Amino acid sequence: MKTNRLDVAPAEPRAFRLGELAERLDATLERADPAQPVGGFATLTSAGPSDLSFIASARGAAEARESRAGAFLAPEGLATPERPTLRVKEIWSAVNRLIELFRPQPPVAEGIHPTAAVAESAQLGDGLSLGAHVAIGERAVVGEGTVVGAGSTIGAEARIGRHCLLYPGVHVYHRVTIGDRCILHSGAVIGSDGFRFELVGGRLMKIRQVGVVVIEDDVEIGANCAIDRAFLDETRIGAGTKLDNLVHIAHNVTIGRGCRLTGQVGIAGSATLGDDCVVAGQSGVKDNTRVGRGVQIGAKSAVLSNVPDGAAVIGIPAIDGKEWTHVAASLRRLPRLLKRVAQLEKEQDRQ
Amino acid sequence: MKTNRLDVAPAEPRAFRLGELAERLDATLERADPAQPVGGFATLTSAGPSDLSFIASARGAAEARESRAGAFLAPEGLATPERPTLRVKEIWSAVNRLIELFRPQPPVAEGIHPTAAVAESAQLGDGLSLGAHVAIGERAVVGEGTVVGAGSTIGAEARIGRHCLLYPGVHVYHRVTIGDRCILHSGAVIGSDGFRFELVGGRLMKIRQVGVVVIEDDVEIGANCAIDRAFLDETRIGAGTKLDNLVHIAHNVTIGRGCRLTGQVGIAGSATLGDDCVVAGQSGVKDNTRVGRGVQIGAKSAVLSNVPDGAAVIGIPAIDGKEWTHVAASLRRLPRLLKRVAQLEKEQDRQ
Amino acid sequence: MKTNRLDVAPAEPRAFRLGELAERLDATLERADPAQPVGGFATLTSAGPSDLSFIASARGAAEARESRAGAFLAPEGLATPERPTLRVKEIWSAVNRLIELFRPQPPVAEGIHPTAAVAESAQLGDGLSLGAHVAIGERAVVGEGTVVGAGSTIGAEARIGRHCLLYPGVHVYHRVTIGDRCILHSGAVIGSDGFRFELVGGRLMKIRQVGVVVIEDDVEIGANCAIDRAFLDETRIGAGTKLDNLVHIAHNVTIGRGCRLTGQVGIAGSATLGDDCVVAGQSGVKDNTRVGRGVQIGAKSAVLSNVPDGAAVIGIPAIDGKEWTHVAASLRRLPRLLKRVAQLEKEQDRQ
Repeated sequence: MKTNRLDVAPAEPRAFRLGELAERLDATLERADPAQPVGGFATLTSAGPSDLSFIASARGAAEARESRAGAFLAPEGLATPERPTLRVKEIWSAVNRLIELFRPQPPVAEGIHPTAAVAESAQLGDGLSLGAHVAIGERAVVGEGTVVGAGSTIGAEARIGRHCLLYPGVHVYHRVTIGDRCILHSGAVIGSDGFRFELVGGRLMKIRQVGVVVIEDDVEIGANCAIDRAFLDETRIGAGTKLDNLVHIAHNVTIGRGCRLTGQVGIAGSATLGDDCVVAGQSGVKDNTRVGRGVQIGAKSAVLSNVPDGAAVIGIPAIDGKEWTHVAASLRRLPRLLKRVAQLEKEQDRQ
Repeated sequence: MKTNRLDVAPAEPRAFRLGELAERLDATLERADPAQPVGGFATLTSAGPSDLSFIASARGAAEARESRAGAFLAPEGLATPERPTLRVKEIWSAVNRLIELFRPQPPVAEGIHPTAAVAESAQLGDGLSLGAHVAIGERAVVGEGTVVGAGSTIGAEARIGRHCLLYPGVHVYHRVTIGDRCILHSGAVIGSDGFRFELVGGRLMKIRQVGVVVIEDDVEIGANCAIDRAFLDETRIGAGTKLDNLVHIAHNVTIGRGCRLTGQVGIAGSATLGDDCVVAGQSGVKDNTRVGRGVQIGAKSAVLSNVPDGAAVIGIPAIDGKEWTHVAASLRRLPRLLKRVAQLEKEQDRQ
Repeated sequence: MKTNRLDVAPAEPRAFRLGELAERLDATLERADPAQPVGGFATLTSAGPSDLSFIASARGAAEARESRAGAFLAPEGLATPERPTLRVKEIWSAVNRLIELFRPQPPVAEGIHPTAAVAESAQLGDGLSLGAHVAIGERAVVGEGTVVGAGSTIGAEARIGRHCLLYPGVHVYHRVTIGDRCILHSGAVIGSDGFRFELVGGRLMKIRQVGVVVIEDDVEIGANCAIDRAFLDETRIGAGTKLDNLVHIAHNVTIGRGCRLTGQVGIAGSATLGDDCVVAGQSGVKDNTRVGRGVQIGAKSAVLSNVPDGAAVIGIPAIDGKEWTHVAASLRRLPRLLKRVAQLEKEQDRQ
């Protein structure tokens, strides 16, 4: 069976010399000839002799010995193999810069695609890009330098900040607010109705959902996430928080700043998370639960009660992480334990 | 870090007097001056002295004492704080009416947007609204007063009822039927193929999926839900049933009437749920399982066997709710129990 | 309450005689009059006296006795009720052929819809179909005979193979590669950024994601799936693998050939699955985990460590399937066990 290996060359092949890279990254050269050419930037496992790779941790340094990379980028103070090395103070900015240099992405055309449908009352900032078949509602505001991908829709009176990147097929409902420098991936839906129905006369009555969603600055929302608008107030995602794919945020939830919510996480209505929380994949937080600052929630957990600042919890229901490790380990001993207790009872009967 | 507070005024500021509201809601005034102005309708925590709030339960009544609200809406027979109160027979209709009065939503333009692509053989009802870049397939039917949001697509021979609301980016496949007054949120996909493959000669053969989906009247489907068409027959969602975001309904499933399926629930192939079931977040029901009427399924459960009418189950696998509470509580005592049994064995050996 | 039964006739009513069907399917007729008319092809439960149904297994044969079907399709060697039967060597190809004959689906128009926005540098194969409001980016390639549904978007330099079927509202990011004969359902997103952020100076820094996604031939991707591009290398879905709805595939994951991932499964970053794995609904695989060939992962499991070839695992964390059955059964005996041990301790104290 034939497979399809990628075969798309970047617009122009890039090659640099080590000395030139050192200058651009404000890096120090070690064991290196500044004239050594560098043909690419790659992971330790993929890099060949003409490539530069990077080492970010002691574990990476161990793996680096097996790498075929011709040179390394590394932070100061980390022992690395005896090969040409670019030393930097902070490695991740340098990694991003090298990616920019070696792997330029296809450019986005500035301007408004002729097929975009923009309401007359909408306000558009300078230098933005509206892709094909975009729809912008009445009185919506889109900030300068923002990119709205093909087929995305912005509802009436929504406000999108500056320098945001909305990939194709993002749907922002009316009156939603999105800050500056946010990234929304395809299929993300922001502002759908909260899930609230009351039984009236034996039938479910929909309670109108007219609150808003506020996405603060520097938030990233993964593909096919769904974030509900509040009932009357607001659903809020704090600045710098990142959501992976297929995350569900219910109405009136408040997520603090700098949180990371991994794939398929769900946060139920009116729950709150403090700043700097990490929620691992497929976990859920019950409605009206308060999760403190800096909390770590393990994968596939169900948080059913409040969690204090700085705690690490896991499990269904979620408990202290260390305790869970013991419980999970004990669990496999349970079938044998039942037999042991039966034996004890038998022996006691004999006495 | 700057945050982005919503700053969108409704088209016209609304203010009413208590007496006027009482008349519109068919409410009785208590401890109230009919001339008292009301500037807004808000939750107990958000309401200020010029706002009306509402109290729906005894718990709300306790919270209301702390509220700064200038007046309350409350059902008859519920003790409320000593402040002006609007008494109504049924509170939720009144809440919805007040939201309509105080928080009008941006209007939807009637008519067919010039960019909509409508097949010639499609039938469109009166007074509908097709947004920008909508696509309607051959012989599809869209009922009167229905709103189809920007970028939504309706497949060939699909039938959408009257007064439905499809938000932008909804995808209805060919031959799907949707009843009257249904609400479909962005990213909802109705009619994708059932997941059925058979191993033939060591390879997976796709079995053609040509059944339909029938969504009955008054159903709401959340953002990014996926509902598969049946193999040959039908997948059916009963009247008045509500699905939260990111719910997965597999082929040939039948969901009864008046059910609530919360975020990220999954119902596997050919499973059936009776009327009035509540399935809490992230739960799953195994294929071919029969869940009775009025069943409550707790959060993050895995229903692996049939559930009788009226049962409340939870857990993986799901068991009776009360039993689960005992099991879950016992679980944390397991590591210590192992030690206690070891101690018992040791002492018995000594005897 | 009125329900909405489907009422869409196929373009032309189909009827065949048994003898004609036998010929088309290369089948042998048993207990049958070749002139017997067949009005439809239906499941055992739905078929009426004028319909043909099918029996694929011994269990089906038992159910068939209750069926009202006028005739059966069955594989050689399977005992069937005493009714007219079409015998075939391999039943599933015959089932698909019968569906084609009796249940033709609405045709897809060839050609490029006038509203499609195709970049000048894009390369389009012969005989393809681009639906309304499709957007094709710069230097993208779409192979011959491929159907791109309304509102789908193909990013710059992406490559879609031949005879693929992209339903409406699929979003393929830049530089993604998709093989031949792939099926992508609505809302599928291929190539969104991997979820990688590093804490730099107390803030999360996004690490640029410039790798690709490679979808090999004959892959099917369910509605609202999300597949992330790799950091620098590739995310790969092996030939013939099938993903159900709402599946999340993180960056740098490698899925083998012929796998089946059921609804709402999530595979975390850099995990690998061998060929022919089956992952049941709502399960998750931890990042960097290696799952062997032919592994079966039970529903709602959390695979936290490597799994050898051919294993069957289930649970949170996932363990051997047989062991899990014992553990799960023991669990319900735990509350009683605690009492039994307390009793043993009491009696021992007395001694």
